[in-house]
Amino acid sequence: MTTQAGPQRGGRGARQRIIDAAVKLFYQEGINATGVERLAAEASVSKRTLYQHFPSKTAVVEEYLRHIQRTVGDPAHPSATARRSPRSRILASFETPPAAGLMRGCPFHNAAVEAADGMPEVHEIVEAHKRTYIEAMTDLARHAGAANPRLVGHQLALLFEGAAAMSTSLNEPAPWTYARKAAQTLLDDAVSRRSA
Amino acid sequence: MTTQAGPQRGGRGARQRIIDAAVKLFYQEGINATGVERLAAEASVSKRTLYQHFPSKTAVVEEYLRHIQRTVGDPAHPSATARRSPRSRILASFETPPAAGLMRGCPFHNAAVEAADGMPEVHEIVEAHKRTYIEAMTDLARHAGAANPRLVGHQLALLFEGAAAMSTSLNEPAPWTYARKAAQTLLDDAVSRRSA
Repeated sequence: MTTQAGPQRGGRGARQRIIDAAVKLFYQEGINATGVERLAAEASVSKRTLYQHFPSKTAVVEEYLRHIQRTVGDPAHPSATARRSPRSRILASFETPPAAGLMRGCPFHNAAVEAADGMPEVHEIVEAHKRTYIEAMTDLARHAGAANPRLVGHQLALLFEGAAAMSTSLNEPAPWTYARKAAQTLLDDAVSRRSA
Repeated sequence: MTTQAGPQRGGRGARQRIIDAAVKLFYQEGINATGVERLAAEASVSKRTLYQHFPSKTAVVEEYLRHIQRTVGDPAHPSATARRSPRSRILASFETPPAAGLMRGCPFHNAAVEAADGMPEVHEIVEAHKRTYIEAMTDLARHAGAANPRLVGHQLALLFEGAAAMSTSLNEPAPWTYARKAAQTLLDDAVSRRSA
């Protein structure tokens, strides 16, 4: 927190600081564990200012996820891997994320766990994000020559979800390596069935 | 809640009712979303009685997970599937769980998500549970004739974690079917490599 970022600052800067605080605290410390007061303090805004920008904490959670969705971009057309083969682009999903403290996995899945039977809008955002990812993997599996791209697309998304979740449960990055090898095996099997 | 189960009841019954309430509320509604007052009310005990049995809410969370661990039993030696082949016992892990409201996945993983950077003892219980499961899958993969049982064991555990997590994210049971088919493919591939 810099000395410039005091509670007196408002406008667009305040809204962005609230989202930045959410990205940090909701992801690292958890959504339910982060109260509105903590969020406001981290963003250097008053609670009143926070509620001027967001009608509720749930609205902050929704915007937090939409912000990550925009930042991550479309998994079917990631700019950094766009020129690579479909197979390379699939396997790029399983690159081990850089070590940065506690392994926290997928922010969308974590939000579904924390939302439980509350926050239905959050569940809708999570589900839409996952379905987009499954579609992207299905398209890539089709272009890679898989015999049953829909099945393989679901399985690749499942491996991604599993690597993210298991790395959270074990707090270690190793699951990403196992997931990448499993993705290779499933993809090779699906391509060989088409060729056969 | 029956009329017999009033706050005046104490002793062993109260402790069990607190665990039963935790199994219901922590799993369905979430750990952080369930306050001590709600837990005590569900268990028909006073907060004072709850704190007589457990020094803290975290202690209830730990006992909740240990209780599930005892109930689930050793995944390497499940009594119901003990006479089946290693392959059948592996695939039995991916049977679609019965529909019962919101899909909530694995209580151990969910506890890791909710614990975030707090509750270190909870993280230890979750990690130990997952490592036991990975070992069990590795043993079964070895008995099933996999060429690299350690790799396959990790991958099977990853598929289980992925099915549980994705079913939570999508709130539907379909991921279990995709995971089961992926487990078959990975296992067949590993066995064929050994035979080759």
